[in-house]
Amino acid sequence: QPQKNRQWRKFLSTVWEIKFSHDTKKVIHSIKVGIALVLVSLLYLIDPLFKQVGENAMWAIMTVVVVFEFYAGAMLSKGINRGIGTIVGGALGCLAAILADDCGKIGNAIIVAVSVFSFGTMATYFRMVPSIKKRYDYGVMIFILTFNLVVVSGLRADTVLMLARQRLSTIGMGFAVCIFINLLIFPMWASDELHDNTSSKFHKLASSIEGCLDEYFGKAEGDKENQHKVYLSGCKSVLHSKSTDESLANFSKWEPWHGKFGIMYPWGKYLEIGEILRELATIILALKGCINSSRQPSQSSRQSIRESCEIVGLSLAKMLRELGESILKMRKSRARVLMSPKLQSLKQDLNLHQKIKSLENEENIGVISFLFLFTEIVEK
Amino acid sequence: QPQKNRQWRKFLSTVWEIKFSHDTKKVIHSIKVGIALVLVSLLYLIDPLFKQVGENAMWAIMTVVVVFEFYAGAMLSKGINRGIGTIVGGALGCLAAILADDCGKIGNAIIVAVSVFSFGTMATYFRMVPSIKKRYDYGVMIFILTFNLVVVSGLRADTVLMLARQRLSTIGMGFAVCIFINLLIFPMWASDELHDNTSSKFHKLASSIEGCLDEYFGKAEGDKENQHKVYLSGCKSVLHSKSTDESLANFSKWEPWHGKFGIMYPWGKYLEIGEILRELATIILALKGCINSSRQPSQSSRQSIRESCEIVGLSLAKMLRELGESILKMRKSRARVLMSPKLQSLKQDLNLHQKIKSLENEENIGVISFLFLFTEIVEK
Repeated sequence: QPQKNRQWRKFLSTVWEIKFSHDTKKVIHSIKVGIALVLVSLLYLIDPLFKQVGENAMWAIMTVVVVFEFYAGAMLSKGINRGIGTIVGGALGCLAAILADDCGKIGNAIIVAVSVFSFGTMATYFRMVPSIKKRYDYGVMIFILTFNLVVVSGLRADTVLMLARQRLSTIGMGFAVCIFINLLIFPMWASDELHDNTSSKFHKLASSIEGCLDEYFGKAEGDKENQHKVYLSGCKSVLHSKSTDESLANFSKWEPWHGKFGIMYPWGKYLEIGEILRELATIILALKGCINSSRQPSQSSRQSIRESCEIVGLSLAKMLRELGESILKMRKSRARVLMSPKLQSLKQDLNLHQKIKSLENEENIGVISFLFLFTEIVEK
Repeated sequence: QPQKNRQWRKFLSTVWEIKFSHDTKKVIHSIKVGIALVLVSLLYLIDPLFKQVGENAMWAIMTVVVVFEFYAGAMLSKGINRGIGTIVGGALGCLAAILADDCGKIGNAIIVAVSVFSFGTMATYFRMVPSIKKRYDYGVMIFILTFNLVVVSGLRADTVLMLARQRLSTIGMGFAVCIFINLLIFPMWASDELHDNTSSKFHKLASSIEGCLDEYFGKAEGDKENQHKVYLSGCKSVLHSKSTDESLANFSKWEPWHGKFGIMYPWGKYLEIGEILRELATIILALKGCINSSRQPSQSSRQSIRESCEIVGLSLAKMLRELGESILKMRKSRARVLMSPKLQSLKQDLNLHQKIKSLENEENIGVISFLFLFTEIVEK
C-alpha cells in the first residue's frame, strides 16, 4: 500500500516536473488569457460600466480574444494593426456614407455597393503583396471589415460617427487590458526566444559534428540507431528553422525596449546568422550522407585518419559551443583573436590528409563557411 | 506621334501580359472578394431582407471578410471551423447562462466569471497543442469568442437562444456566399498548387544539377554570376519549401473531390516526396560548395573526368525531369523499367573514376538517394 502510494506520488511529481519545465510558459499564457477575459467581461458584469458602454462591450471581448497572442511582439503588432485598420476603415467608411447620403435612395445603394466592391477588391489585392502580407496583413483585413460595416450601416444608423467612436473606445479598452496583462505578468518576449534559439542552434550543430565523428570512427555503442536520430534531428531542425526565425524576428521588431535589448536592435543580423548556420547544417547533413555511403573504406583504414579528424571536428564543435555561449551572454567573443589563427592551422592539418578521403574535403568546407560565419558574428 | 502611340500600346500590352501571367490569380481572387462583399451587403441594402435579419447582418459581413481565403481548402477549413466553434461555444454558453440564471444577482456574476476564466484558460491551452493548432486553431478561437459573448450577454438579454439562432443563420448565409463565389468562379485549389509545386521541384533540381556541371567544367559564359544565382535560388527554394508544403497539404485535405483528385487522395505522399527532394537539394548544395572550394584542381585536370560526369549528371537531370513530368500528368512512369538498370550502370561508370575526385562521391550519393526517391514514387 505505501509502495503504491509512493509510486503514485512519484508519478504526480514527474508529471508536475514535465509540465513545469516544458509547458510552464503555455500554462502561464493560458491563465493570462483567462484573467484578461474575466477583466474584460467586467464591462458587462458591473452595472455602471455597462450603462456607459452598452452592447459595444462586445468589441472589447472580441479584441481580447483575437489579439491576445503568445509573444508580446505578436500581440503588439496585431493590436496596433487592428487599431489603425479600424481607424482608417472607419474614417473612409464615414466619408463614403456621408457622400452616399446626399443622393437619393437608389443612388445611395449604388454608391455603397460600388465603394464596397472597389475598396474590397483593392485592399484584398494589397493584402497579397508579400511585403504588406508579412507585417500588415491583419491590419488590412480589419480595414476591409470596418469599412464595410460602417459604410453599410451608415444607411441605417444616423449616428454612425458616435457608433464608430464608441466601438473604437471599447476596442481601446480591450487592447489596454491585453497590454496590461501580457506585458506586466510574466511577459514572453519573442526576442528572448529568437536569441536563445540562435544560441542553441550552435550547440545543436556542435553535437551533430561530434555525432558524425563518433559514428564514423565507431565509438558509439548501445542503441546507435537512436542516438543517430537525435543528432540528425537537431541538424534538421536547424535546417528548417527559416520560417520560425522570420516570424520571431518580425515580432521582435514590434517589441519595445526591454531587458538586454535596446531600441533598434539589429534583428536582421540574427536572420543572417541563421542563414549561415543553415548552410553549415546542409554541409553536415551531406557529410552524414558520405558517412553512410556503402563505398566507405573498412574500419581499419579509417583509423589512419582518425586522429587528425577528431582534432579538427572536436575543436570545431568546441568553437561552435563557445560562439553559442558568447551570443547567449552577449559578450564580444574574447576568443576571436585566438580562433582565427587556430582555424588556419586546422585547415593546414587537413590539407596534409587531403588526398585520403572526401570526408576531409567536406569538413574543410565546413571550416571555410565557419570562417564566413565568424566574421559575420564579429561584425555585430 | 504614331510611334509614340505604338510604344504606349506596347507598354500597355506588356503590363497586361505580366499581370495576366503572374498576378492573374491574385486579381481574380480580389475580384471574387469584392463580389462576395457586395452580395453580402445586400442583406443591408435590400429592405425586406434587412427586416428579416436586422443588425445581425453584421455577422454575415464579418464571416465573409474573415473566411474568404485564397485557396478553396483554406476557406472550407476556416468556415467549418468557424461554424463548429460557434455552435459548440454557443451551446455551452447557453448552458452556463441558464445555470447562472438560477442563482441570485451576485451568484450569477460569480458563476459567469468563473466559467469565463476556466473555459478561456482550458481552451487557450488546448489551442497550443501542436496537433490541434495545425488544423483546429481557428475553431477553438471562435469557440472562446462565442462562449464568452453568449455567457456574458446571457445576463442582459433574455432572448439569448433566439439571438444565437439568428447569428448562426447569418453566419451560415455569409459562408454560403463564400462557398458559392469561391468554388464556382475560378476556384483555386490548394491541391493543384501542391501538385504543380511538387512537379516543378523536380525541374528545379534538374536545372541545378546542370548548372553545377556547367560551372565546374567552365561551359557557362557571359554573366556567370547571375546564372549561378538563378539555379542556386531554385535549389534553396526547394530546401525551404517545408512549411509551404505542409500548409498546402493541410488545406488539400479539406478540399472535396474535384478534377483529377479523388477522395482520400494520399496527400501524405506528397510530403514524403518533398522530404526526399529536400534531401537531394541538400546534397546538391553541398556539391555546390565543393565546386566553389579553393582547393579544386585546375581546369585542365578537370577535363579528364568531364565526359563521365556529364553523362551521369545530364542523365540524372533528364530522369528528374521525366519524373516531374510523369507526376504532373499522373501517369505511372512508364520509364520505370528502363531507369533502374540505367542508374545501376551509371553508378558503375562512376565507380571507375571514384578515386579521382570527391565530386563523384557526392553525385553518387545523389544517385543513391535518387533510388530511394524513385521507389517511393513508384509505390504511389
